Amino acid sequence: MQFKIRAANKEDCKEISRMIMELAVYEKMPDQVKISHEELERDGFCQNPFFECLVAEVPEHHKSREGFTVVGYALYFYTYSTWRGRSQYLEDLYVMPEFRGNGIGKSLLSKVAEVGNQKGCVRLQLSVLNWNTPTRDFYAAKGAQDLTDSEGWHFIRFDGQNLENLVNEAPKDE
Amino acid sequence: MQFKIRAANKEDCKEISRMIMELAVYEKMPDQVKISHEELERDGFCQNPFFECLVAEVPEHHKSREGFTVVGYALYFYTYSTWRGRSQYLEDLYVMPEFRGNGIGKSLLSKVAEVGNQKGCVRLQLSVLNWNTPTRDFYAAKGAQDLTDSEGWHFIRFDGQNLENLVNEAPKDE
Repeated sequence: MQFKIRAANKEDCKEISRMIMELAVYEKMPDQVKISHEELERDGFCQNPFFECLVAEVPEHHKSREGFTVVGYALYFYTYSTWRGRSQYLEDLYVMPEFRGNGIGKSLLSKVAEVGNQKGCVRLQLSVLNWNTPTRDFYAAKGAQDLTDSEGWHFIRFDGQNLENLVNEAPKDE
Repeated sequence: MQFKIRAANKEDCKEISRMIMELAVYEKMPDQVKISHEELERDGFCQNPFFECLVAEVPEHHKSREGFTVVGYALYFYTYSTWRGRSQYLEDLYVMPEFRGNGIGKSLLSKVAEVGNQKGCVRLQLSVLNWNTPTRDFYAAKGAQDLTDSEGWHFIRFDGQNLENLVNEAPKDE
């Protein structure tokens, strides 16, 4: 199947927003999505964007049942390792179910790595849910290492009230 | 003990570099550190910095045995949640052993959260090694959630040859 990987533009945010919800449904946490396409437009297409995004597009004659031609996306940002330096984090990689098995996900992933390589990034990281075997196998097959299994790294998060508490405890500047 | 939390400047990179190594030794992975203070200067103090950093400084009369007055640091960067939006990731939080127990780590953490709050961040994330009980307890006591335990998130990494392979497989632009 023909498809094209390209950098997302502001006008793609509605499509990206739709697919973010589709991915959350797959991850069994649709109620977690609190973000609008307006926020994506604001945060991804400003002076110092919080993220970058690639989209996969198919020709009109391959469009989805619902008539979509933007059928996948990879949303990532730049991070930093104090051991190795410039790195990338892949927040989301998604291909609509009816378009899977055509190498679109693999192409999105490789393109993200290529963009990072051009910026001097030496790592590409992401996270997966332990029950999500197809996804874990997808990355493992490409040589990715599971650092939670191999080194014992755990994800920690502050949000909501416990984050507010931290903010309120911050020392006041003289 | 008196101490001050302030934004790091370029001139602090040698001290930050020294403490990055001290932290890696504590984490039992000193051989993993491949970064120089010149790289920190380049990547943290450029147009679109890859990270931001706070340092903890004590007065001259409290200086460390080796004569250091910069005794802790918190290195973080901005990330993005496609569910919640603007977020922060705390890459490193470190206080020199002889200065622990004075609230310096807590102040660094709170100050990072305050800076994020001013930027509209709704999450502060980080990762810890599962054997590092003191650190896990430190964050848990402040209400942080362990997402690896509660939701089953695993860290995945591409680097070295497997990352190069991805880059080389990227579809070529027409």
